[in-house]
This record gives sequence, structure tokens and C-alpha cells, in this order.
Amino acid sequence: MSTATKQAVLYSFWRSSCAWRVRIGLNLKKIPYEIRPINLTTDENKTPEYKKIQPFGAVPAYIDNDDKDTALVESVAILEYLDETRPEFPLLPKDPYEKSVVRSLVQAIAMDIQPICQSRVLRYIGSEKEDEWAKHFLSEGFSALERMLEKTAGKYAFGDLITMADVLIVPQFYNGVRGELDMSQYPILFRINNTLQEEEAFKATHPSRQPDCPPEFREEGN
Amino acid sequence: MSTATKQAVLYSFWRSSCAWRVRIGLNLKKIPYEIRPINLTTDENKTPEYKKIQPFGAVPAYIDNDDKDTALVESVAILEYLDETRPEFPLLPKDPYEKSVVRSLVQAIAMDIQPICQSRVLRYIGSEKEDEWAKHFLSEGFSALERMLEKTAGKYAFGDLITMADVLIVPQFYNGVRGELDMSQYPILFRINNTLQEEEAFKATHPSRQPDCPPEFREEGN
Repeated sequence: MSTATKQAVLYSFWRSSCAWRVRIGLNLKKIPYEIRPINLTTDENKTPEYKKIQPFGAVPAYIDNDDKDTALVESVAILEYLDETRPEFPLLPKDPYEKSVVRSLVQAIAMDIQPICQSRVLRYIGSEKEDEWAKHFLSEGFSALERMLEKTAGKYAFGDLITMADVLIVPQFYNGVRGELDMSQYPILFRINNTLQEEEAFKATHPSRQPDCPPEFREEGN
Repeated sequence: MSTATKQAVLYSFWRSSCAWRVRIGLNLKKIPYEIRPINLTTDENKTPEYKKIQPFGAVPAYIDNDDKDTALVESVAILEYLDETRPEFPLLPKDPYEKSVVRSLVQAIAMDIQPICQSRVLRYIGSEKEDEWAKHFLSEGFSALERMLEKTAGKYAFGDLITMADVLIVPQFYNGVRGELDMSQYPILFRINNTLQEEEAFKATHPSRQPDCPPEFREEGN
């Protein structure tokens, strides 16, 4: 019997930092996947069809290349799943204590920074106040993250191997740049982000290289 | 040689839903712990001393009963750590796919609902607008969670065994009640929360039963 030839599918939006996390994970683990773009700016994510796949109407959603058709949702849950089912390029250390330290970096970004400054929140804040809002919460968040990295960083966020923390750092750093923060205020974060830019899995998954990236933004990542 | 007699320590605030998550996990797994209350209303969490322990100045932080003195931070990272180091009362299913489904419920609460309505965000919004804000994002979040539970729930959030998803549901439900939402709009959530109220680990860890709960709120949980 041959193994399944079904391709994995990722519902993604070029500029979503949460979708980018999963693209990096898939590329680090060399899992082939098809991208199905969901346009968050035209409310394509709010259709009843898409909400059946992802109840919050958010990206990413991921369908694995196995016999199940149900999509997995929530970026960190998807990364944990990929890490458990694909031992190649582990994203977490083996020791439970070290693993918890990496997960605390992941969750500092995924729970304490990203959600407060995501687009559905900024839209509710309104265009007059959204810049001030994003700057306030992004700087508060990056400062705390920088203090965590003082204790944990080596070449990367946790020691000298790429982990799940790095997978979240690069997309969040990009959001900081978009929010016009002076990211050199966070020297460890700045250095780690620069180092990761050299890695093919981070480069290839950059928003500017996505099939649904509008032509005027294609230069950004070069 | 005798085993360590050091007691685990939890930095907690009676009304913090994130601290409550970890209290439930510790109680389900019958790990004895000492509570060190950190008063979020008097900015005790913003002192340089506490920020050395938890860089965001948030609760919980957890020091295990081993030879390490460094605190673990971020509630879900702590729960994952407890689950890996204490096999008693597993909080996640064994199958990676099912595990990912439970983690997606966990993260729907921990990333898509709680952070947007936490106290440091509401304080920034200001007392005039915070009620409307909390109601908007809590109802949006609970509606999506209810749709996820339609696919996953049995007696509890995922089938008929208590999982990490339930550990997060009860404190978040409590926040919904505090935000004066009509929680009967979410019948599955409502039923699961009621069922969990019968469990000792959820009862004993209720905010109203905490050592730092002010006397006027002690009746709440009875």
C-alpha cells in the first residue's frame, strides 16, 4: 500500500502574523503544503463557510496530509501538533523545565502581545486612536519580552538552537516594525530577528513572498 | 535519601483568571503549594522585585518543589509543565490530533478571549468605556467558543474526561459573569461550567476561597 499523497492545506493571509508562524513551522519541518488565501480585508473570513472551518473567522487553519478532513485551528496548537507528529527539526527542548521556558516565551507573544494589537481589536479602536494603542501595548510587551530574553537567549531566543519561540518572534517583530516602533530599543530581540532573517524557512514565508501579497508590497521583504 | 521537602509556590491574585487556571491544575494533580498573594490593585505586581520574577508584572508565577528556584511563568506553559512532570490526572489526551483539539480550545480562551479583556487593557480603555468593550469582545469570544464546543463537547469540553480546556473554561466563565453577560446564551458552556462546579479542585480554588479575597467577596462562591 502506498502512503497518502494528499497535500496539507494552510488557510493563510499574507499579512497575518499568526498564519506566518505556521508557515515557518511547516517550512522548518519541510512539510509540503498548499496555501488557500483568506482575504481578511474583504471579510472573506467572516463567511459562514469559513467560520465552519475556523469559528473565530481567523487564520490560520490547517488540514494535515492524513485521512482527516477537519481543520486544526489556533497557531500555537498547530505548531505543537506539527512538532509532535514530525520529529524532524524539533521546535521544543526535551527537558520539561526547558520546554516550559520556551513555551513561556511563545505565550508571552501569543497571549500578552499579539492579541491586544490584532486587527479586529484595532478596527474596534478606530483609525484615530489605533496607532497610539498599538504603540502603547507593543512597547509594553516588547520590553517585557526583552527582559525574558536576557535570561534565556543565546544565538536564538533560547540558547543556540532555533525553537518555537523564534518562530513567533519574527512575525511579531514585523508587527512592531509595521507599528513604527523603534525596534533597536530591544537589542536582544533585534539581534535575534536579524540572525533569523538569514534562515530560508523564515525568508521564504515572509508576507511579501506570499501568493496573496498585493504587488505594491512585494518589495518589502527584499 | 529522602525526597525534597521544599513546597511549591504560586504567586497568585484571588481574582486573576490566569492564576485560577494554575490553582485548578495544581489541585487536580494534588500537588501541595503555598500561595503568595500579589495584589494587582495596589501595583504590588509592578515592583522591580516582582518584575524580576514575572517580567510582565502579571500573575501567576510558579516555583516547583524541586532544586530550581527560577519561577515558571505564563499560565498555559505552567499547566503544560505540570502535565509533563506529573502523570497523575492527565490534562491532555494522548493522541496528537486530539491533543491539538484540546489545545485549540485552550488557546481560543487564552489568546482570543482573555487577553483582550484583561484588567491592564480595561484600565487603559477607561471606566467609561470598559463595560461596553468587555461585553463586545467577551460575547464575540464566547460565541466562537460555543461553536467549537458543538464539535468537541461531551460531559466536559472534550468528551467525557476533564482536560486542560475545562481548566480554562471555569475561570473564563467567571469573567463572563463578572462582565454581566447573560451566560445562558451559551448552553454548552453553561452546562459544562455547572458540571465542573461540583468538582472539588474547581470549588476549592474559587476566587472567593482565596486567602487574599477581601471579606466582602467571600460569599460569592457559596
